[in-house]
Amino acid sequence: MSTIWTPRKPSEPIVTSLLDVDFYTFTMQAFIRYFHLGIRATFGLLNRTKVPLGRHIRQGELREHLDYVRTLRVQRSELHYLAGTYEYGRRMFDDDYIAWLGKLQLPEYNLVYLDDGHIRLEFEGDWEAALHWETIGLPIVTQLYFENLLRGMTRLERDAVIAEGIRRLHEKVEMIKREVAGGRDKFTFAEFGTRRRAFRDWQYYVDETLAESLPQQYLGTSNTLNAMLLGHLPMGTNAHQLQMVLVALASLGSDEDVREVSRRVYQDWWKMFGYGLSIALPDTFGSKSGLEDLGEQGAREWKGTRQDSGSPERDTDRKIAWYESHGVDPRGKLLLYSDGLDFPRAFQVDDYRRGEIGKSFAFGTNLTNDFPVPSALSLVIKPLRANGFGCVKISDNPAKAQGDPALIARYKRVFACEGGEREECRY
Amino acid sequence: MSTIWTPRKPSEPIVTSLLDVDFYTFTMQAFIRYFHLGIRATFGLLNRTKVPLGRHIRQGELREHLDYVRTLRVQRSELHYLAGTYEYGRRMFDDDYIAWLGKLQLPEYNLVYLDDGHIRLEFEGDWEAALHWETIGLPIVTQLYFENLLRGMTRLERDAVIAEGIRRLHEKVEMIKREVAGGRDKFTFAEFGTRRRAFRDWQYYVDETLAESLPQQYLGTSNTLNAMLLGHLPMGTNAHQLQMVLVALASLGSDEDVREVSRRVYQDWWKMFGYGLSIALPDTFGSKSGLEDLGEQGAREWKGTRQDSGSPERDTDRKIAWYESHGVDPRGKLLLYSDGLDFPRAFQVDDYRRGEIGKSFAFGTNLTNDFPVPSALSLVIKPLRANGFGCVKISDNPAKAQGDPALIARYKRVFACEGGEREECRY
Repeated sequence: MSTIWTPRKPSEPIVTSLLDVDFYTFTMQAFIRYFHLGIRATFGLLNRTKVPLGRHIRQGELREHLDYVRTLRVQRSELHYLAGTYEYGRRMFDDDYIAWLGKLQLPEYNLVYLDDGHIRLEFEGDWEAALHWETIGLPIVTQLYFENLLRGMTRLERDAVIAEGIRRLHEKVEMIKREVAGGRDKFTFAEFGTRRRAFRDWQYYVDETLAESLPQQYLGTSNTLNAMLLGHLPMGTNAHQLQMVLVALASLGSDEDVREVSRRVYQDWWKMFGYGLSIALPDTFGSKSGLEDLGEQGAREWKGTRQDSGSPERDTDRKIAWYESHGVDPRGKLLLYSDGLDFPRAFQVDDYRRGEIGKSFAFGTNLTNDFPVPSALSLVIKPLRANGFGCVKISDNPAKAQGDPALIARYKRVFACEGGEREECRY
Repeated sequence: MSTIWTPRKPSEPIVTSLLDVDFYTFTMQAFIRYFHLGIRATFGLLNRTKVPLGRHIRQGELREHLDYVRTLRVQRSELHYLAGTYEYGRRMFDDDYIAWLGKLQLPEYNLVYLDDGHIRLEFEGDWEAALHWETIGLPIVTQLYFENLLRGMTRLERDAVIAEGIRRLHEKVEMIKREVAGGRDKFTFAEFGTRRRAFRDWQYYVDETLAESLPQQYLGTSNTLNAMLLGHLPMGTNAHQLQMVLVALASLGSDEDVREVSRRVYQDWWKMFGYGLSIALPDTFGSKSGLEDLGEQGAREWKGTRQDSGSPERDTDRKIAWYESHGVDPRGKLLLYSDGLDFPRAFQVDDYRRGEIGKSFAFGTNLTNDFPVPSALSLVIKPLRANGFGCVKISDNPAKAQGDPALIARYKRVFACEGGEREECRY
């Protein structure tokens, strides 16, 4: 028998295609190209765990992988694949965007190894180009960290790590099968773990085996390259950065100007993509205001919303109440839970007010980085500044807030993170 | 060193994707779906060489490969690829067609092994579905024939056959490089040999190495799967069958009705695909009438024409004269020669009235089936009947005429294959 896992050779790049990113990269780029040309943005790596990455990842190696990505271009057949995406409405990507994408080279990165063992990694450029780094930078850093954990191991020790990952994945699949057999027959989920994956081949293996094992439950993957190679559904809509950047640009305006920007994001998104991609992410500045800004049209016409921070149960209550306040039956709407769940927790959430609203789930770390080594990091790459203005995220979870405290204070006021939801707004 | 060529295992299918066909399959299907729904057509294998195929290809094996094709469906990422074809105008395939293609199963085949050693192979079904068999049936039959020639050989003998194929390909590439260096710097060509290929992997090897060796001269391939896998340009427009079938359906009408149908094909093709795919194939009933039917608009607006029968030099004269008669400068128009050329002959044709009309070349057998075994067959799969009416092709070469002699006689009259071009019309 051969070894079950052959480690990457040092010369082998981690990311070999500009499609090896979350699908929302492309939808957001098309959106920005259409509505918001000419914005400069700076994205930065934020490390929520306090692991000093500079002590685990060699600078030369990290640079090599980031440099390699700058040599990549979107290839002819990859353009065909994207331009031909038909699952969300056939004309979702316009000609201007496809032509631009065919010429895209990712902007430079700015990497500094700090004395305290941490690293500073930033990407600055045209907003729509710089954002392409998010789900490339994260898996590169994470994979180098994972590989470093395994570096001193014998072949058998390494294989045992991967074998335990396979065993856990198998256990999850069996757990889901039992739940489905036991009556949870409407349970569906997606794999959203590009940014968290231990290593590239593992995510591919996960997607491939999930589709084989759970064809009725596994819906697809956020990873566009895997979706293309495996023929799976590419999934995703957009990220917090849309509102973070656009609100930042409006920060010299009145409070009402700022709120208007938040509303416009939803309206423009609907104009561009319509029903197909109408799953809103309303928690950028707290879900209370987000749902207000999404408004009547969002409640009536949009497919649903995503829950990405705070308590899933409380969000379930909030969303059901919101639909009902607009006279809409929540059972015809989707609530997509994507905030770091594992399967047992997802089943709890699924049981909460079951049947009162449509539900689906997205899993990241739990699918793409669950090994018996401490390889799962809580890293994000987020916009720091847009045309020089600071970007802020508040969310429904104090631990997920990002940005300058003075700005956070202002936006807490603008987006009324007080009153009924005070307990979620202790920033 | 390992063997340079590993023969296909008996269990391995030859055709594993419904995209492993010439690109014109899809353009013609979209055209028929849009303009001509509801036509039943029967396609048949015609064997211009007199090799008794039934003595070389085992019936069970042939059936196995044809049966396997009927299990195939166009996969999700393949639909993306086609729907996203942007090189000929982004919206070339409409939603109805893509939805239909996603559900396509090829119709049944009808295979009879005759007592004289020949085989009868027919495909009957909705026209747009049945035509998908053309460039699948041909390479399957050809590959089984090629493999049979090599069956009794030792490994070294087989490798020597392939090695000689590689040597010949290399010689062609060097020849082209010399010609280009010697001033033939505008020479370009495409690989159109799916139907003639010795075996699937060989065509892939040819496309891959041509792109590496002659990036300025090699334009792309007619094979859609190779184009997708290699990121090459998928090439092709349409085939004689469009006029063969539509004229057959009009055969109860007057002579003028028949000519009107021939004109409409060009007009509708332009309506559907516009400039992007506007290379006309006017020789179905002789190029003289074909150019008349293509008409003023064809001379002025279309990109060019294809030469697929008769003398290339005479066709060059004819096309130049035709453009000039419409006051159009032929130097801005393309003449694509695709009638069984090899490279030395192509260079002769290129030298003929050089600079007076734009030229490009397409090669089949000479690229995909040139080995030191008699593996190149002259097989075609053509429409025999449409809604019961006999189909006819005349062309500019008596040896390429097909169909019932009485019908040929009528269409010779309708399409005026007399007079100035009498010498080409000795049917």
